Amino acid sequence: MVSTVGKLGRIQPPRCRQVATTSPADPGRLRPPRGMDRLDANPANSCPLTPLGFLERAAVVFGDCPSVVYHDTVFTWSQTHRRCLRLASALVSLGISRGDIKLTRTAVDRIEIVGAGPAMYEMHFGVPMSGAVLNTINTRLDARTVSVLLRHSGSKLVFVDPSCLPLIRDALKQLPPGHPPPRVIPVEDPHEKEFPAAPPGTLTYETLLETKGDPEFAWVRPASEWDPMVLNYTSGTTSAPKGVVHCHRGIFLITLDWLVEWSMPQRPTYLWTLPMFHANGWSFPWGMAVVGGTNVCLRRVNAGAVYATIASRGVTHLCCAPVVLNMLANAPEGVRRPLPGKVRVLTAGAPPPAAVLQRAETIGFEISHGYGLTETAGLAVSCTWKKDEWDTLPAPERARLKARQGVRTPGMADLDVIDGETGRSVPRDGSTMGEIVLRGGYVMLGYLNDGEATAAAIRDDGWFYTGDVGVMHPDGYVEIRDRSKDVIINAGENISSVEVESVLYGHPAVNEAAVVARPDELRGETPCAFVSLKEDAPGTVTAADVMSWCRERLPQYMVPRTVVFRAELPKTSTGKIQKYVLRNLARDMDSARKGDE
Amino acid sequence: MVSTVGKLGRIQPPRCRQVATTSPADPGRLRPPRGMDRLDANPANSCPLTPLGFLERAAVVFGDCPSVVYHDTVFTWSQTHRRCLRLASALVSLGISRGDIKLTRTAVDRIEIVGAGPAMYEMHFGVPMSGAVLNTINTRLDARTVSVLLRHSGSKLVFVDPSCLPLIRDALKQLPPGHPPPRVIPVEDPHEKEFPAAPPGTLTYETLLETKGDPEFAWVRPASEWDPMVLNYTSGTTSAPKGVVHCHRGIFLITLDWLVEWSMPQRPTYLWTLPMFHANGWSFPWGMAVVGGTNVCLRRVNAGAVYATIASRGVTHLCCAPVVLNMLANAPEGVRRPLPGKVRVLTAGAPPPAAVLQRAETIGFEISHGYGLTETAGLAVSCTWKKDEWDTLPAPERARLKARQGVRTPGMADLDVIDGETGRSVPRDGSTMGEIVLRGGYVMLGYLNDGEATAAAIRDDGWFYTGDVGVMHPDGYVEIRDRSKDVIINAGENISSVEVESVLYGHPAVNEAAVVARPDELRGETPCAFVSLKEDAPGTVTAADVMSWCRERLPQYMVPRTVVFRAELPKTSTGKIQKYVLRNLARDMDSARKGDE
Repeated sequence: MVSTVGKLGRIQPPRCRQVATTSPADPGRLRPPRGMDRLDANPANSCPLTPLGFLERAAVVFGDCPSVVYHDTVFTWSQTHRRCLRLASALVSLGISRGDIKLTRTAVDRIEIVGAGPAMYEMHFGVPMSGAVLNTINTRLDARTVSVLLRHSGSKLVFVDPSCLPLIRDALKQLPPGHPPPRVIPVEDPHEKEFPAAPPGTLTYETLLETKGDPEFAWVRPASEWDPMVLNYTSGTTSAPKGVVHCHRGIFLITLDWLVEWSMPQRPTYLWTLPMFHANGWSFPWGMAVVGGTNVCLRRVNAGAVYATIASRGVTHLCCAPVVLNMLANAPEGVRRPLPGKVRVLTAGAPPPAAVLQRAETIGFEISHGYGLTETAGLAVSCTWKKDEWDTLPAPERARLKARQGVRTPGMADLDVIDGETGRSVPRDGSTMGEIVLRGGYVMLGYLNDGEATAAAIRDDGWFYTGDVGVMHPDGYVEIRDRSKDVIINAGENISSVEVESVLYGHPAVNEAAVVARPDELRGETPCAFVSLKEDAPGTVTAADVMSWCRERLPQYMVPRTVVFRAELPKTSTGKIQKYVLRNLARDMDSARKGDE
Repeated sequence: MVSTVGKLGRIQPPRCRQVATTSPADPGRLRPPRGMDRLDANPANSCPLTPLGFLERAAVVFGDCPSVVYHDTVFTWSQTHRRCLRLASALVSLGISRGDIKLTRTAVDRIEIVGAGPAMYEMHFGVPMSGAVLNTINTRLDARTVSVLLRHSGSKLVFVDPSCLPLIRDALKQLPPGHPPPRVIPVEDPHEKEFPAAPPGTLTYETLLETKGDPEFAWVRPASEWDPMVLNYTSGTTSAPKGVVHCHRGIFLITLDWLVEWSMPQRPTYLWTLPMFHANGWSFPWGMAVVGGTNVCLRRVNAGAVYATIASRGVTHLCCAPVVLNMLANAPEGVRRPLPGKVRVLTAGAPPPAAVLQRAETIGFEISHGYGLTETAGLAVSCTWKKDEWDTLPAPERARLKARQGVRTPGMADLDVIDGETGRSVPRDGSTMGEIVLRGGYVMLGYLNDGEATAAAIRDDGWFYTGDVGVMHPDGYVEIRDRSKDVIINAGENISSVEVESVLYGHPAVNEAAVVARPDELRGETPCAFVSLKEDAPGTVTAADVMSWCRERLPQYMVPRTVVFRAELPKTSTGKIQKYVLRNLARDMDSARKGDE
């Protein structure tokens, strides 16, 4: 069944601008006429869906408009188009080719820091336009992990941001003997003086484009819309990184879908605070080409830089992880700048705490909240706002509604919360927990070289299993309660750690909070809270204060039995709190207590 | 090749909310594991693309918001959802079924007047949700043509607007003996007293929904995204009507594509002046469900009613044929009403004359112009506006740019103008004419029961041949010069009738103009102009005046040799001037002259 589906792609794409070799009226042609008995896909409607064509169109429609802005470097869409064609042709000239469609030998990895400079943007078009697969590597990983990824993806070529050259050299040293090392090409950043320039004669990103790039290159179109296009390793909050593969069709669909769902106007000014290596910036690298937006890049994402850039560039839209939203909302008065107008913010990755939402909206941000996974190429669920009904509610109620993950986006086919035992939908009661499942056009092809993990996530019942635990509200909106493994089972009662955390976030002195299970001989597990306090929190806050705050707002069994204060909570590079680190800490605590006893 | 593609759809859709019968870890399962060697379409990402799911989502997100408004009837999205499910289930209960997927026996035709009442809207979801194919019939056709269409489509059931009951009865009488007549179900319109109510006991649209409809019906999902969903007969400006068939995938794609291209906000108020039987209202019946818009319906589209409705309902968006735009622009002062805000208008079907554009924009309409055919399910080309560059130009220059057809929409794959002889792209010089060709996701499946016409339009070189003649401007925008058969060849010089017409439209007294070839023994053909004058045109205008107006603005060979004044020009039901009628008149004139000689 699945293999039949796959055959869609094996047809050759129509050759462009070429004469028909057999005219329909040619009596000598062999193929039967189409028509009555052949109303089906045909050469004119079955060309593969791909987002790569958006760039060509942007060069026509928005040719003289700014495409990418970084310090005083400003490219136009016409220039970006030609630079991407140069990149694609240069990669082909280096021997990168479509090759093995199964991806094991075609991955072109690149590595660069958060949205720094135009090269990262260009690679989202240029690399797949060469027929290769783009793998953006998280720059905050350690050398050992990077070497594991390079080996796993079988990369042939790695573009490296100057700040990451030491990291990549370390990673290459850790490749097993006999593994062919990928070619390394440094990317320049003339705006960063602290990194040494590449020695003269080095083949760098810019010299590659200049010496080997052909701006008139006929880019390599996918043979099938199901051909792999991007590879992204999961950030590993819960387990070893897995290589998520998406195809041209999926990326095409999510790109259009989110422009619709976010009601994107033409020519927005889009600030990159979300790293492009985080699920390809939730499809917006390609989306900006559709609407002719300006991509504003930043190397260092801190509150001062973000506020200053919003003001100076007239930013209208940005996506960000919750940690950045938190940072913007809690920025001290002196760091903030007045916004030049309404700034629309899309956030996802963890439910934004009510207090953060309220503060951000007071500042003038218009927050949209969604949910997705690397496996869905970005966000697949959106807390679509019911303006007439919800705008008039009190702020805490609005924040509670907005913190929910929401409904499927228009382009996704289905979303549900199902009981793991029976596979049936849970009741729409807002309290019965089940696993969140999805299906639709931009669910991944699967995990690279990991058929078992793919089969565990994508099952024959047609659902992609997210591994997230949630509830279905009576109004059809889904709310995450937890990752499966983050649920705490206290004497048989399921506790959503997220629910406890949202109460902790409501405490005026709390900056960040995470709740994990602490093993308990009597009760199995008890909730253990790790908390960091705001810098300007008045007075002292004790564990007892925090517990009593929770006791007033939660059932007894959900109140943390342990509260640990930390200056900062451990996080992944994408700003998610690493619960497994805290879980280990909680387990060790317990061992210590057992030792005491 | 094509049949392989077609197999995509033959897979069974995933069964919803059902337990996997074989778990991925089940050692007994027969299928090989997916993964490394199977990164491909899979059960979670290959569910057929279809616009029908938009309605379910609208009921969740916009449940209490108005969906369809007609006089004092207001439905909400929740009600429309349930009514469409009732309709789908009732159709199934009447024996309408997916049946022969090749469409010859499953077409459900319906017939109703321009966007009158909610039933027409509901059928765009309800009919395909039963698995049947929706065919909306142009209500301005004559009984003979309607009977030809009913026979050709093999309709089993026809819904009929009260105003069209006499027409359909006549049409049924003209069916050939032995042809099984379709069942006729009248649609009520309680707001129109002039039509007699159906006799008691008649199965009407409302009684069907009430007595046989199940609002909890599990709608029939397409087995494949390539399954036919809608059938539309071309309006026949140039030849016999052909039945254009589109599939679920095509309609899904055009719907999202146009929401992006028109930067559609959430919750627009959309006025139906474009009949839904005209290429399914260019996809907006489905688009309104995505964004939760309000569909405002009108039975009679005249300037007074349109202006009054825009004001009273707060209309924000409308699509219209050029004849309606012309009507709005030229409406006398007394008929116009101030617009409640910016009203965005999308027009296509013929290049809007500069004078009409200017007048409409002065009134407060924001005009977008596009181009498409029934064969592209709506518009596939858009004159995407370059606001920074073009907004500051003088009005006539802006109008000239806006009258061009434009560039492909983001979702279409390719657009070109090619030389009919060589199949190569014409130079980008704005003057060399060639045939406009397209390819992309919403090119039709083909013509029903007409393999020859399908093969002539969709060729093995991968292009759909539009039959329209145009030029490619240096900036990459396409402009139509003419339908292939409307080009006038005067002593070997090609004359674009549209170019001559646009000069005629510039004349202050001209209301409408059409130029066709008049046979000429010496020169082959000469241009012959048919002109209607504005009601309030001052003074008298003679043929000599019109010719001299043209002589000042056109090369001598393009100046009409004949000018005929008519009170009104003959038009199709969708407002296009019927050139073949005028061409016949011009031919007869000539014969007369020859007879005189």
